Amino acid sequence: MKEIKAIIQPHMLTKVIDALHALPHFPGVTVSDCQGQGRGGGKGGRFVPDERSIYFSKKTKLELFCSDAACEELVRVIKSAAHTGNSGDGVIMVADLPRVLRIRTGEEQDQAV
Amino acid sequence: MKEIKAIIQPHMLTKVIDALHALPHFPGVTVSDCQGQGRGGGKGGRFVPDERSIYFSKKTKLELFCSDAACEELVRVIKSAAHTGNSGDGVIMVADLPRVLRIRTGEEQDQAV
Amino acid sequence: MKEIKAIIQPHMLTKVIDALHALPHFPGVTVSDCQGQGRGGGKGGRFVPDERSIYFSKKTKLELFCSDAACEELVRVIKSAAHTGNSGDGVIMVADLPRVLRIRTGEEQDQAV
Repeated sequence: MKEIKAIIQPHMLTKVIDALHALPHFPGVTVSDCQGQGRGGGKGGRFVPDERSIYFSKKTKLELFCSDAACEELVRVIKSAAHTGNSGDGVIMVADLPRVLRIRTGEEQDQAV
Repeated sequence: MKEIKAIIQPHMLTKVIDALHALPHFPGVTVSDCQGQGRGGGKGGRFVPDERSIYFSKKTKLELFCSDAACEELVRVIKSAAHTGNSGDGVIMVADLPRVLRIRTGEEQDQAV
Repeated sequence: MKEIKAIIQPHMLTKVIDALHALPHFPGVTVSDCQGQGRGGGKGGRFVPDERSIYFSKKTKLELFCSDAACEELVRVIKSAAHTGNSGDGVIMVADLPRVLRIRTGEEQDQAV
């Protein structure tokens, strides 16, 4: 199993969720508010204080899990729907998830998707 | 070390925390508010828009870490305490955690539990 | 790639962020509010109910990703900046992150840092 975590622009949430809804299998998703700062904009990624960089920007965090087979497509769909081309578009992280279970049914792994 | 992440019904939080408190070793826990949508309810998990599914449901996220040996029991305790039998009960995810340390003491791995 | 997650005292956030800004490469960081309880204070980590332990404490969660090579220094910097020596200083967790990509540029892995 894989866990996909995406930090996106809050105003792109609806577009990302719509893109996930349009998939043959909608995997379910957890959404939270967060704040962030991107990597440093200076040489080699050094932090450069200016009017924009000293504040945190509001971001939205998506978390979902999926089968190994579905991961590639989900990353592609989220990346494409969350893309504005502007600085601050965010990142997508994929981690291995050895175990997943549904609390109601007790289904595990691929059955839990 | 293992990281356990559970997305549960907000009204089951007290019961889950009480169940964790009752264990011989209470591992500590981090709690956050979040929202979510479950997997698609249509054929093959397809998303079906209806009055309930177009909104996000409020959920509570629990995060804790533990030794490999304690993981199985903690998952069982959380699953049992968070279970209502209704749709939306949530999921439990278990991930490997190569390193954990306590900021105050510098204790690492099993000593940090 | 590595993911670093730190649960720290909210009033130490500025000091931790300043310490990260001072690094030659500022990796970017995601910040969220959360609540938590530490491990049990009784014998063997047993939970002991008292006036302090029955409430959750407000905590701040930091999440960032980095290259394998940078991880050790980042953990050291966060640990040092977040340290007050009091109970409740929090924990740092390090997990493997097989894949990271930036939504705007499509950069992956070490290029995404």
